[in-house]
Amino acid sequence: MELISVLHMKGGIGDSSYASNSLVGNKVISMTRPIIEEAVSNLCRNATIPEKLCIADLGCASGPNAFLAVLGIMKAVDKIRKQGGFQSPEFQVYLNDLPGNDFNTLFRDLPQFQESMKEQLGLDFGPCFFTGVPGSFYCRLFLSKTLHFVHSSYCLQWLSQVPQLEEVNKGNIYIATTSPPSVISAYHQQFQKDFTAFLQCRSEEMVKGGRMVLTILGRKSDDPTSKECCHIWELLSMALTDMVSQGLIEEKRLDEFNIPHYNPSPGEVKQVVENEGSFSIDRLDASQVNWDVYENDGAYNITKCIRSVAESLLANQFGHAVMDKLFQRYLEIIADTISKETTQFFSVIVTVTKSALRLQEVAHFGILNHQQSANVESSSSGVKNLLSEFNDADEDLNEKDHIDDYILDPDNQVYENVLSDGEGDEEAAHRGEYLSDDEADKEPQLPGTTNINFSI
Amino acid sequence: MELISVLHMKGGIGDSSYASNSLVGNKVISMTRPIIEEAVSNLCRNATIPEKLCIADLGCASGPNAFLAVLGIMKAVDKIRKQGGFQSPEFQVYLNDLPGNDFNTLFRDLPQFQESMKEQLGLDFGPCFFTGVPGSFYCRLFLSKTLHFVHSSYCLQWLSQVPQLEEVNKGNIYIATTSPPSVISAYHQQFQKDFTAFLQCRSEEMVKGGRMVLTILGRKSDDPTSKECCHIWELLSMALTDMVSQGLIEEKRLDEFNIPHYNPSPGEVKQVVENEGSFSIDRLDASQVNWDVYENDGAYNITKCIRSVAESLLANQFGHAVMDKLFQRYLEIIADTISKETTQFFSVIVTVTKSALRLQEVAHFGILNHQQSANVESSSSGVKNLLSEFNDADEDLNEKDHIDDYILDPDNQVYENVLSDGEGDEEAAHRGEYLSDDEADKEPQLPGTTNINFSI
Repeated sequence: MELISVLHMKGGIGDSSYASNSLVGNKVISMTRPIIEEAVSNLCRNATIPEKLCIADLGCASGPNAFLAVLGIMKAVDKIRKQGGFQSPEFQVYLNDLPGNDFNTLFRDLPQFQESMKEQLGLDFGPCFFTGVPGSFYCRLFLSKTLHFVHSSYCLQWLSQVPQLEEVNKGNIYIATTSPPSVISAYHQQFQKDFTAFLQCRSEEMVKGGRMVLTILGRKSDDPTSKECCHIWELLSMALTDMVSQGLIEEKRLDEFNIPHYNPSPGEVKQVVENEGSFSIDRLDASQVNWDVYENDGAYNITKCIRSVAESLLANQFGHAVMDKLFQRYLEIIADTISKETTQFFSVIVTVTKSALRLQEVAHFGILNHQQSANVESSSSGVKNLLSEFNDADEDLNEKDHIDDYILDPDNQVYENVLSDGEGDEEAAHRGEYLSDDEADKEPQLPGTTNINFSI
Repeated sequence: MELISVLHMKGGIGDSSYASNSLVGNKVISMTRPIIEEAVSNLCRNATIPEKLCIADLGCASGPNAFLAVLGIMKAVDKIRKQGGFQSPEFQVYLNDLPGNDFNTLFRDLPQFQESMKEQLGLDFGPCFFTGVPGSFYCRLFLSKTLHFVHSSYCLQWLSQVPQLEEVNKGNIYIATTSPPSVISAYHQQFQKDFTAFLQCRSEEMVKGGRMVLTILGRKSDDPTSKECCHIWELLSMALTDMVSQGLIEEKRLDEFNIPHYNPSPGEVKQVVENEGSFSIDRLDASQVNWDVYENDGAYNITKCIRSVAESLLANQFGHAVMDKLFQRYLEIIADTISKETTQFFSVIVTVTKSALRLQEVAHFGILNHQQSANVESSSSGVKNLLSEFNDADEDLNEKDHIDDYILDPDNQVYENVLSDGEGDEEAAHRGEYLSDDEADKEPQLPGTTNINFSI
């Protein structure tokens, strides 16, 4: 299967589209807003604001979420430049997704978004130029040394391909407790390979000192078979198995099928970034959000969400004809599950800075001139600066939020950290409205979320 | 009517799509190939080839034509860099059209095009990054001073809006001999205003010395009511009038309707470029191509072509329900017309170079430093250099082509010039194949075309 030509979120704006079923994605981007603001603040503090500022959102899909992160980034830049009394930079915004993405819907929503942006940010903001970039982010997508800020949310858990498996992953469509060890290992290796390729490509495309905020659907446990990440696919696998027993799907087709998906732990993300060596880690956060985002119609919403995300793959393997029945059965299973237990998605959020040289290159050449040395130092000491800055920033937020204080990794000392949910009104965003900061601040806190930050 | 949200070529790849009905556009781009090659050659000769070369195709639509001009530009750059023994630049390609364009089809065709490009140009070519840019080219679309080469074919005859008319253009949908003088004047003024805005925007976006090749569906005569440009719309107006007499369309709706289209003469194009002042004209060419491009199924093909181009506007005014009947009547009228007379589209092709300063700025500041002075000189003397270069380049082409030697403008001395049709096999391009130079050279010359070049 040529994944690049098959995988895409469900296009359009209909009831089953991703645009209408991206509440979780919306909430996660909103929750990440303070992290994005902090990264923008650091980008603009260590250097003057570039005259031409290039931002890329990788895996933007279509619908209201596609512009949400970009809006947050631009607002953060605009706040800083106003505080400093600078002229607005020109913005180049790259919206990337696979060629099968519904760019038509994305582009048709753009004029309305631009109008809203003008109203909120004023006429002295920008100009701002939007482009769509079709292609896999595991390959080069942009000119060398042009990007200042890269964002990606809930995309990097998608692998470039289903891993090459030596054994059949019988009865499963993803890693499960009953998966052979070779399957689990193949999945992990594919993630390492893909995420490394991603970092290598971005390393070539980003300017020195550029920032990247990546939110990945992951897990908190070290155990890749942990229910916290595998459960959603296990339930789909149950629905598929029911379809096999009803003779609606061939067993052979199910045996062949595995989801090209991997939910990494914070430690696994950290390891790949460090091994690749082009970026220093500024922050490593984790957060969780209930499957039932709004504690209302949960089973129905989560089923539609997974359908809008995975139907292209499933229909390619099992045919379009059985999709309605499959997702009806899935809905029943999900409803039963969430009535009995608390179910959550777990996100790993990593903020990185492009180093002057890859750590391997530093070791190889053995010399650094003054400028490079200064940059490498500033990258590696970034965390320390950031901690003190972050503590200051926290003062405004503490009352609004709550945290979990469990320790995610025995080697990492967890310190308390809280995140507000930035854009606030997801329903407004789904109506195609983009809230101003004032309006967003009035919104109540979202339920069902917790956040923690790792020391790194 | 908000034109930007209504006008678009018919999307998809079906029988009625623009992708399947763009033979004229295809032929015109092919004919322009030597002009594009020459402009690329001048761009790369006066300076070293930039490490990052940014190309924009404005009004790309979708289908095979969307990549044809860009391919020609990249091939021309690659030829020069190979001759000079340079490394390939990185290419950034911007494919622009209105937000209603079918970018999904465009992007889904991209992987196949990239494969073909790799085969033809080799692995040491590029890398080459493609982006889609939704928006009107009468506004800013790109960052300041980033574009090296701009191409647009058969788009600039579309105005940004229907001109504000003081009188009803009774019985017509475009300029006609029976149009009131105020209507003709309003159309001309709208063209001047729009084309000026286009040049101002590109002037901000292009680097000094950047080249632009613009092919506009125009006319040869000084008379804007000349049949050579108005005929195709007069026949559509006849079909619409028939629909009114059959009670299928309200007369009032027809009276209100005018096409936002203007076919300029070479002299009018020249005048706007000179008045705007940011660009110097290197060449001003004209060519003509039969309505019946392949002298086969002419009426059917031209009707489908115009339908794929104008249906979005017509359906918006008269409703989708009457479109089939309207175009059936139009087909009958076209068939009758081309059986009795030779009917041709006329193109104006202008090649310009971005000057160091706008001529008005030179006059205003009254001083030029050495560098600026050198650049302005080189721009204004570009034509002289180009003529001698072009005569050399002609040697390979003379045997293949033919010319018309009529004088288009009493003030312009016409010299003989011939153009080959570049990519050659439009049918292959319509199958989604992209010919190599060797293959293209084997193709027979296209029938029904003539070309002339104006001294300027």
